[in-house]
Amino acid sequence: MSKNKVISDAVIKRLPRYYRMLKILENEGTVRVSSGSLADMLNITASQVRQDFSNFGEFGQQGYGYTVSSLKAEIAGILGLDKPHDMIIIGCGNIGTALAHYKGFTDDGFTVRAAFDVNPQVAAGLPEEVAFYTMDRLSEYVESHNVDIAIIATQKEVALSVAEQLKSLGVNRIWNFAPTDISLSDSELVVENINMSDSLFVLSYKIK
Amino acid sequence: MSKNKVISDAVIKRLPRYYRMLKILENEGTVRVSSGSLADMLNITASQVRQDFSNFGEFGQQGYGYTVSSLKAEIAGILGLDKPHDMIIIGCGNIGTALAHYKGFTDDGFTVRAAFDVNPQVAAGLPEEVAFYTMDRLSEYVESHNVDIAIIATQKEVALSVAEQLKSLGVNRIWNFAPTDISLSDSELVVENINMSDSLFVLSYKIK
Repeated sequence: MSKNKVISDAVIKRLPRYYRMLKILENEGTVRVSSGSLADMLNITASQVRQDFSNFGEFGQQGYGYTVSSLKAEIAGILGLDKPHDMIIIGCGNIGTALAHYKGFTDDGFTVRAAFDVNPQVAAGLPEEVAFYTMDRLSEYVESHNVDIAIIATQKEVALSVAEQLKSLGVNRIWNFAPTDISLSDSELVVENINMSDSLFVLSYKIK
Repeated sequence: MSKNKVISDAVIKRLPRYYRMLKILENEGTVRVSSGSLADMLNITASQVRQDFSNFGEFGQQGYGYTVSSLKAEIAGILGLDKPHDMIIIGCGNIGTALAHYKGFTDDGFTVRAAFDVNPQVAAGLPEEVAFYTMDRLSEYVESHNVDIAIIATQKEVALSVAEQLKSLGVNRIWNFAPTDISLSDSELVVENINMSDSLFVLSYKIK
């Protein structure tokens, strides 16, 4: 694998989709898959699949296709899914609480350990396995626990100041669900902004 | 505006981001904006901005930039945000309930009118303005109400059959939050799949 090559965002965004398809194929007992079949499943071209994988070295063998389990393991490694990630949630409104209950990523090693809010009453809505703390205990928590990723699910007015507080505490990986993009000029900080309206607007465009 | 031109997905996905930026600029009282400033805000190049907009005809004037309010109105029109959209939610678990409460898209004319679930007890978690029905009343509802978009927030096992039921009732626009991609071979059906894990995996990749 060529570690220093810059991989385009478009390729990186396709990797989770390959990974999901390979998980399904593995569960179904499929041993080998061709670039053509993978392409059909993802609604892209076979040459796109081969080109994507060539960014990371050679996975397959001409005419034999790819071994599902080893391709899946390779992509898991590239995505960093081969190790566990501890997460915390800041903001326990509807979105934050839904994420605390969401089980879609636990299989891949992402675990919500704790949730924070200014209002202690929201604790009642959280699942038992997620510890609740009021916001004033955030720094104390971060100092004594491992935090790989912080999920921001606050109102948009406070999202940026929460991100700055997290950064000052050394938490540099943010998954942002607040309805505003967080962009801080800090090369250490990694933010993925989820803006749900964007996807709804794309749907609206396609409706016409 | 050249209506028959095929616009690439990449361009379409940038339109909501332009729209959001223009809304912010308009709220701040900004009258004109250059392609360079828009580019900086979106972390792309000015030539990309000009090229994107050229897909839809000429919005700006060389050397004068764009008028914020008219560019925003043009993009709203392209995205179909200039008319209201009635939505229903199928599945009132944590994600469905969170979406019923979410206010991030109401300003742009998207309103959740009703929510459906097999379990009537979930109705207690919904906001007052969203009507609750059990699933057996879905066809009756669709026959007597306007439904522009159906949000699927069910468990993954039933998502596809719900999509097929909606299609048979004539609801062809689906915003899918179930943790599985819905792809039906039907050119009338428009689906936007939200797979939250994909974004988390991209974040995980960037962490390394």
